[in-house]
Amino acid sequence: MAWTDERARAALRTLFDAAVSAADPRKVLAAHLPPKPKGRCIVVGCGKSAAVMAAALEDAWPDVRLEGTVVTRYGHTVPTRSIEVIEASHPVPDDNSERGAHRLLERVQGLQKSDLVLALISGGGSALCALPAPGLTLADKQTINRALLASGANISEMNCVRKHLSAIKGGRLAAAAQPARVVTLAISDVPGDDPAVIASGPTVPDPTTFADARAIIARYGIDPSSAVTEHLAKASDETPSGLGNAEFHLIATPMMALTHMAETAHGMGLNALVLGDALEGESREVGTLMAGIARSVRAHAEPLQAPAVVLSGGETTVTLASQTTGHGGRNTEFLLSLAVALAGAGGIWAIAGDTDGLDGMDDIAGAIVAPDTLARARSAGLDPRAMLAGHDSHTLFDRIGDAVRTGPTLTNVNDIRAILIA
Amino acid sequence: MAWTDERARAALRTLFDAAVSAADPRKVLAAHLPPKPKGRCIVVGCGKSAAVMAAALEDAWPDVRLEGTVVTRYGHTVPTRSIEVIEASHPVPDDNSERGAHRLLERVQGLQKSDLVLALISGGGSALCALPAPGLTLADKQTINRALLASGANISEMNCVRKHLSAIKGGRLAAAAQPARVVTLAISDVPGDDPAVIASGPTVPDPTTFADARAIIARYGIDPSSAVTEHLAKASDETPSGLGNAEFHLIATPMMALTHMAETAHGMGLNALVLGDALEGESREVGTLMAGIARSVRAHAEPLQAPAVVLSGGETTVTLASQTTGHGGRNTEFLLSLAVALAGAGGIWAIAGDTDGLDGMDDIAGAIVAPDTLARARSAGLDPRAMLAGHDSHTLFDRIGDAVRTGPTLTNVNDIRAILIA
Repeated sequence: MAWTDERARAALRTLFDAAVSAADPRKVLAAHLPPKPKGRCIVVGCGKSAAVMAAALEDAWPDVRLEGTVVTRYGHTVPTRSIEVIEASHPVPDDNSERGAHRLLERVQGLQKSDLVLALISGGGSALCALPAPGLTLADKQTINRALLASGANISEMNCVRKHLSAIKGGRLAAAAQPARVVTLAISDVPGDDPAVIASGPTVPDPTTFADARAIIARYGIDPSSAVTEHLAKASDETPSGLGNAEFHLIATPMMALTHMAETAHGMGLNALVLGDALEGESREVGTLMAGIARSVRAHAEPLQAPAVVLSGGETTVTLASQTTGHGGRNTEFLLSLAVALAGAGGIWAIAGDTDGLDGMDDIAGAIVAPDTLARARSAGLDPRAMLAGHDSHTLFDRIGDAVRTGPTLTNVNDIRAILIA
Repeated sequence: MAWTDERARAALRTLFDAAVSAADPRKVLAAHLPPKPKGRCIVVGCGKSAAVMAAALEDAWPDVRLEGTVVTRYGHTVPTRSIEVIEASHPVPDDNSERGAHRLLERVQGLQKSDLVLALISGGGSALCALPAPGLTLADKQTINRALLASGANISEMNCVRKHLSAIKGGRLAAAAQPARVVTLAISDVPGDDPAVIASGPTVPDPTTFADARAIIARYGIDPSSAVTEHLAKASDETPSGLGNAEFHLIATPMMALTHMAETAHGMGLNALVLGDALEGESREVGTLMAGIARSVRAHAEPLQAPAVVLSGGETTVTLASQTTGHGGRNTEFLLSLAVALAGAGGIWAIAGDTDGLDGMDDIAGAIVAPDTLARARSAGLDPRAMLAGHDSHTLFDRIGDAVRTGPTLTNVNDIRAILIA
C-alpha cells in the first residue's frame, strides 16, 4: 500500500498519540504499584500530573483507603475521591506552593513501619511545592536563585544550593515519613531522568552537603542575604544522603514514549530509529539537520531503509533574536525550518509536539509537515521564510489547517518529533 | 579490550584517514576507468582535485598517450607527465580561469567518434573554469551573480541563469567534444551529488532553457545589463538538453567515504550508524544535538548499541555574531560545542574535520574531543565557553595539542564527523 498524504498524516498523528498514551498515568501507573500495605496508605505528590496520577491510583486501588494530598498546577485538577488536590502556581511559586508543601510534610508525620507512603512526582513539582527552610523566606530563595542563574553555575550546582535552602526538597519529605516505607512513582521530563532532579527530588537522597553549597556560593562570588549565610553555616540538619525506607520507580519517561512510538511504527510496516530521548539545540537548526537525515534515508537508505520513521525526544530551544510579534513554539519552529530545508521534497512528512499538549504559549500541541506545506502556505498568501524569521510558526500552521490540537494531556515527557520517509 | 583514551583517539584518527583515503583519486580513480580508446585520449578537467586526478590517470594508464589540460587551484598542482596543469583562482575567478576554460574547449575540438575524452571534475571547478558566453564579460556575470544572491532565488534558479551566461558550463564542454565519447569521472562535494551541480556540470546535459533563465530574471525583478538581456534573448545556441556521447561516474562522494568509515569501524569491533551524507545546520547547534545522540547511546543503547560510532557528512555553518578575532572553523566549532554539551561525560570521544585538510582559514583539518577536553583546556588557563562564544576553537584545540593536521589532501568530499561511544 502506497504512502499517500492521507495515510502518512494519519500514521504520524497515531504515533504522537502513542507517545502521549505511553505517558498517561491512567494507562501506566497501575503496573508500577507495590504490594498493598498492611498499615495506612498515605498519598503525597507534586507536579503538573499530580492530580491525574492520584485519580489513576484511586482507580487502581478502589479497595484501599487512600489519604493524602497532592499539589498540581492551576487548571490541572481532575476529580478525585479521597485524595485532596491543592492548586498552585508554575513556574513561579506562590503562597499555595508553600501551603501545599506544608500539607505534604504534615501528611507524613507520625507514621508506622507498616504504613506506605506513595509519592506521585512529575515535572513542575519543584515550583509547585516550595517551602523555604526554617528562618528563610521565599524572597531569600528567589534572590539567590537569580544570582545563581546569572553566575554561570551549572544545573547540578544550582540544585545543590536550592536543596540546602528548602524544607522539603533533596529527600526531606521521605526523611520526614520515616519509619514508613516511601515508594515514589515518577514521570520524567528531564534529560537523563535523574530522580534527584525531577521536582528536585523530595523523596530522593541528596549526596551533597551544606559545605558543598557554601563552596558553590564562594566559587561564583555570590553575596547571599545574612539569613541564607546563617542557614548554610549549619552543622546539623543535613539533607539525607541515604534513605533506607525509600524506593523510586519511573512510570513514564521520554524514552518509554519513544519506544512505544517505535513499536507502533513497526506495527504500521515502518522501520523506526530512535535518535535520542533528550536532544537539544536551537529549534530551527535541529530542523535543518533533521532535513539532511530525512534526505539521506531517501537517497541512500541511511541511517535506515524507507519506509521509516526517525524519532526523537527532548526540548529544543527558540532564541528570539529581537522583539517579535510572532506566535510560535519550539515544535512548530522546528517543523517550519524542516519544511523550508526540505523545499517540498517528495515522500517526507513530519509531526512534532509537546506531549503536555502546549507548544509554547498558545493552545497548539504541535503541527504536521507534508511535502506540500510550503506550496499551500504560499497559496494562502503566507511567506514561510519570513514567518520562520519572525518566529510566527503557529500562525502559519494554523492558517493552513495543519496545527495539532490535543488539549492539555495532563502528562509531560517533553517534546517528541517523528519524521516519516516513504 | 577496553576503550582507553589512547585506543579511542587512534581509532578516530584511523576513521578520518579512511574517509580521506576513500576520496583519494590515487586510490579510487583507476577502478572507474572505461575501456581504453581506439583513437586519441584527451584529458580535460577542472576542480581542486584536477591535477591529482590527472596524475592518478597517468599512473593507471601508463601505456596510453594522454593529451590534455586540467585547471586546478593555486597550490593544488602535483607533477604530471604529459597532461598540462593550469592554476587559477578560487573562489573568485581570475584571468587564468578564463584562459583555462578556453584551453579545455580548444582541446576537444576536431575529435573523431573513436576518440575518448576523459573529463576529471571536482569541487571548485565552476570558479576555476569560468568563461562568459560570447559578447559577455566576467563583470557582466559578476553583477548578475550578486543580484541573484540578494534576490532570494534558490540554488537551482541561480545555476540556471549562470549556465545560460557561460560558454562552458551546462554541458557545453561535452557538446563541443562531439562526436567523441565523453566519460566524466567526478568527485562530489555537493549535497545530493547532482552531476549538473558539481562544477556547474560542463559535461552534463542541462534541461533548462534561455526562456527559463529569462523567467527567473523577471520573477525576482532583476535588472540585468543590456549585454545580458541581449544574450538571454537568443533563440538558438541552447545548452544541450541531452548528450548522447556523454556518461558520468562518481568516483568519490561523501557517502562513499562514510561507508568506508563504517566498514573500517566494523573491523575495529564498533557498531556504526551513518546519520547522513549532507547534514547542515549551525555548527554549535549540531554539536549540542549530537551530544544528545551520544548520551542516548550510553544511556539507552539508542540509536545503536555501544561500542559504536555515529558518523555524518556535510557542511555545517558558522555564523559570526559580530566582529571576532578568534581562529576557528566549522569542524572545530562543532567539536568545542559538543565538548561543552557533554560536560566531561565519560566514554565519549569525537573527531571532525574537512576531508580537504583545511577547516576554515588555518592549516588545521579538524580536531579530536575526549572526555577530558574541557578539564585540560581549563588546566591550560583557557575558558572553553568563552572561546566557543568567540569562535576561537582552533586556538583551543591547538593549545591543548588536539588539533588534527593532515596538510592539503588534494581531494574533498566535504566534512566528516565521527563520535565514538565506548
